[in-house]
Amino acid sequence: MGNKTAVSPWVSIDERQKVRLDKREAVLRAAAQVFNEKGFQSTNLDEVAERLNVTKPTLYYYVHSKDEILFECVKIGLTMLQESIQEVGAQGGTALNKLTAAMRKYAEIVTMDFGKCVIRVGEDPLPPESQRKLRRIKAVIDAEFRQLIEQGIAEGSIKPCDPKIAAFTIAGALSWIARWYRPSGPLEPEEIAHQCIALLLNGLSPTQEKK
Amino acid sequence: MGNKTAVSPWVSIDERQKVRLDKREAVLRAAAQVFNEKGFQSTNLDEVAERLNVTKPTLYYYVHSKDEILFECVKIGLTMLQESIQEVGAQGGTALNKLTAAMRKYAEIVTMDFGKCVIRVGEDPLPPESQRKLRRIKAVIDAEFRQLIEQGIAEGSIKPCDPKIAAFTIAGALSWIARWYRPSGPLEPEEIAHQCIALLLNGLSPTQEKK
Repeated sequence: MGNKTAVSPWVSIDERQKVRLDKREAVLRAAAQVFNEKGFQSTNLDEVAERLNVTKPTLYYYVHSKDEILFECVKIGLTMLQESIQEVGAQGGTALNKLTAAMRKYAEIVTMDFGKCVIRVGEDPLPPESQRKLRRIKAVIDAEFRQLIEQGIAEGSIKPCDPKIAAFTIAGALSWIARWYRPSGPLEPEEIAHQCIALLLNGLSPTQEKK
Repeated sequence: MGNKTAVSPWVSIDERQKVRLDKREAVLRAAAQVFNEKGFQSTNLDEVAERLNVTKPTLYYYVHSKDEILFECVKIGLTMLQESIQEVGAQGGTALNKLTAAMRKYAEIVTMDFGKCVIRVGEDPLPPESQRKLRRIKAVIDAEFRQLIEQGIAEGSIKPCDPKIAAFTIAGALSWIARWYRPSGPLEPEEIAHQCIALLLNGLSPTQEKK
């Protein structure tokens, strides 16, 4: 009785694990930024370490290789895209409403570090097995877009079209933002997304073509 | 009198120059194909030589380095894009007609060897000075697209929009074709271009939004 509750001066295992994961993500994010600026081949991990104020051996406590870093960066970006489209798919509304919400998320993600890395660098520099794993996620994202378009055509909220070509047209227009958007430029990501999506929804022609 | 016209058994200088240029283009085209399939870093010039049934030293009679080859491939592709948009700009019709014709050309060129190389490989692997030269041509192409859009808005053939974002949306949608189009696939380039452009002109929404 009257004993104090024992408080360990050491950090708990859970807490240590969380700190480790946060630090690993910081490494991946810094690397994604350098990849996006300089390209994968020209990136030196010394520069990544420098940006984090650590030594290169410290990086290797969190990741094993430059290939592993790129794989993880692209995987995080693709997973963000995949989850966002699945989230909007679970919401109510027409397929066109869902598709519009998915496009907005997509445009937002490709202006962020990991999303930008998916488009600007991508899986091409990686070994075949890593490429295959990442392309599987890409195929799922593409399938989700096509399915929304097919649903929209079936219910009448989307104009009849080839869902495959439409999905690629949307993905191309939105992914391109990752290539030309500059945070220092005059346009905000929301405004770019808004205008790009308005064009995809309503087209360039002032009056709808009737057939 | 009665003399025969002298016919030299040697090929003329003009003819030799033409043969040399044709062979150089064949080298560049074979290299573009390998770059497009494998990426720039993974391409070995031995493979390019093999596809042409020549030795690697023979290649070096026409080009000096892998960097020079990529520079020339991207330059040819960009020049094709630039010339095509300037040609349609010189035709009659509304700015929307011209823009549609330019989009059709653009979509066609990015499914061809040099055009595909602009999108799939591009200038990123090259030294800064080469990048700058190629980006100057890109800026001209972008300016031509924006100008057509501005003209269209002014004359009422194109819906009011931000010409910069619209030009990038169009370029993104059409350039993406270079990434996903496979000659072995079920879709012909003309059909892809047609559907992609129809979507950009008329949008996904079945009815035009009124504001």
